[in-house]
Amino acid sequence: MLKVPDHQVAGHRQARDGKPFPLIDDAGRFYKPLQDDDRGSKEVAFYSSFSSNTRVPDHVRRLFPVFHGTQLIEASDGSGLRPHLVLEDVVSSRSHPSVMDIKIGSRTWYPEASEDYIQRCFKKDRETSSLSLGFRISGLQIYGNEESRLWKPENKLVQNLSAADVKVVLKKFVSSNFPDDPNSDPDCSFAASVYGGSTGILAQLLELKAWFEDQTMYHLNSCSVLMVYEKEKVLKGERSDAEAKLIDFAHVTEGKGIIDHNFLGGLCSVIKFISEILTSPDECTTKVCLQDSDKNTNDSENCTTEGM
Amino acid sequence: MLKVPDHQVAGHRQARDGKPFPLIDDAGRFYKPLQDDDRGSKEVAFYSSFSSNTRVPDHVRRLFPVFHGTQLIEASDGSGLRPHLVLEDVVSSRSHPSVMDIKIGSRTWYPEASEDYIQRCFKKDRETSSLSLGFRISGLQIYGNEESRLWKPENKLVQNLSAADVKVVLKKFVSSNFPDDPNSDPDCSFAASVYGGSTGILAQLLELKAWFEDQTMYHLNSCSVLMVYEKEKVLKGERSDAEAKLIDFAHVTEGKGIIDHNFLGGLCSVIKFISEILTSPDECTTKVCLQDSDKNTNDSENCTTEGM
Repeated sequence: MLKVPDHQVAGHRQARDGKPFPLIDDAGRFYKPLQDDDRGSKEVAFYSSFSSNTRVPDHVRRLFPVFHGTQLIEASDGSGLRPHLVLEDVVSSRSHPSVMDIKIGSRTWYPEASEDYIQRCFKKDRETSSLSLGFRISGLQIYGNEESRLWKPENKLVQNLSAADVKVVLKKFVSSNFPDDPNSDPDCSFAASVYGGSTGILAQLLELKAWFEDQTMYHLNSCSVLMVYEKEKVLKGERSDAEAKLIDFAHVTEGKGIIDHNFLGGLCSVIKFISEILTSPDECTTKVCLQDSDKNTNDSENCTTEGM
Repeated sequence: MLKVPDHQVAGHRQARDGKPFPLIDDAGRFYKPLQDDDRGSKEVAFYSSFSSNTRVPDHVRRLFPVFHGTQLIEASDGSGLRPHLVLEDVVSSRSHPSVMDIKIGSRTWYPEASEDYIQRCFKKDRETSSLSLGFRISGLQIYGNEESRLWKPENKLVQNLSAADVKVVLKKFVSSNFPDDPNSDPDCSFAASVYGGSTGILAQLLELKAWFEDQTMYHLNSCSVLMVYEKEKVLKGERSDAEAKLIDFAHVTEGKGIIDHNFLGGLCSVIKFISEILTSPDECTTKVCLQDSDKNTNDSENCTTEGM
């Protein structure tokens, strides 16, 4: 029995404009309808190449969804048989997953794309936090401690956050107090078990980083890192099941002997934000001043240390 | 006595359009005329901030030229007194330096710049290797073993090299056979002493990388890494004096709590090229295939391992 999943967080994986939804089954598989244009075939080509690529080490492979091939099934919009990617279901098999979809890279376009696509992405990267932060939050849902309470802000609201606001959202993601309450500071009480530790999300991202410093096979343009965990399990004192998984490979290109410096830079920026939450959740940031001191003697108070 | 230096390799530091040359003295100082627009004051502001910034560790500070303030001196074009940055002379105090100027970053523009500047940089980044490689070679001179022979290709010729050609140039930079001879493969005989070792250029770049993974104070837009050494010293069996130095800070902006992911990504790309020369100078690269296998069964021979 196939059904529509509950926990999609990023816009482009939801049904819109008459396009079919992805589907899931009870065996933990996720059926993603192939897009009609060449994005569908490009994503299949990536999964086929990656899943059979013996040069991908196991500790990196587990950061990608398992690929079970493609399958012709009835599309969820009733439009008939359509090919679907069959993937490991990272999110929907969990009962109350908190999920964050982070699109990595200050640039989501790439030289091989059409000029129209390049200009659209160029504009969006500048309008969102991608350009400044090296990534943007594409989607988000955070459960409260009571399972009935879910915070799922509109994607538009989280795509263009400042550095300070991104840090707050990354803290809310691992806090026990309810994320939509503006009057309470996030307590970061799950930070150590979700982000930290030898199997936490930071450790997984650092493994990914080491691979990206070396691999020159794939450029993961416009890909996302999905971070998922269940608050309930952490509250019960069970081992955190926090996972980072890469998703969305419709724009992957061949690396041709060059590292994916755009993905790597953005990933390092995410890593820095998460590391700071783990090492100094209440820290102040220290500003530097690049005003010409001769011209701006009256502004010297701007150059002092300032809390965030 | 001030004089015009012999060893400028990147175009924008040479006199053009009636602008004054930089000057050097015999005491190892380099006098860089302040540019008239706000680039001059921005570069002074950066050097002032950086040189007094106690949070910059010593092993990072030595990768930047020492700053000796500014000084009003007669400009080299006879236009009268003009303020100059007074810096450590990294290049010209050497007798026969081989020099490479690598502009770091796939993007040389930044959000705070004017729209006109952004569009000009955007175009140039796409026309050169910046976009694809994450850096471009801005200037280059390599001495042969005989001091009289110097290879100094036009800057235009090296700005848009492919990955394979950049690797060849980086090999030529550390080879004993003469770099302008198209019939001999570079022998990389100085690679270990110039790029390698605990004090070589790779070690210096890795220290820089570690700092960029952490520091959120400065974004070094459109900066270059200058790599310098003297072949003569290496030939005599003396310890290599190879140095990496960051230069050109007219477009530095405040980091505002975000790492410089654009610089870091490009730097990691340079590091990967140099690492490969050290670890496997004659390696083949292995291609992956992202063609849709259903559609391209006849192209399967494209997916095999291919030498470079």
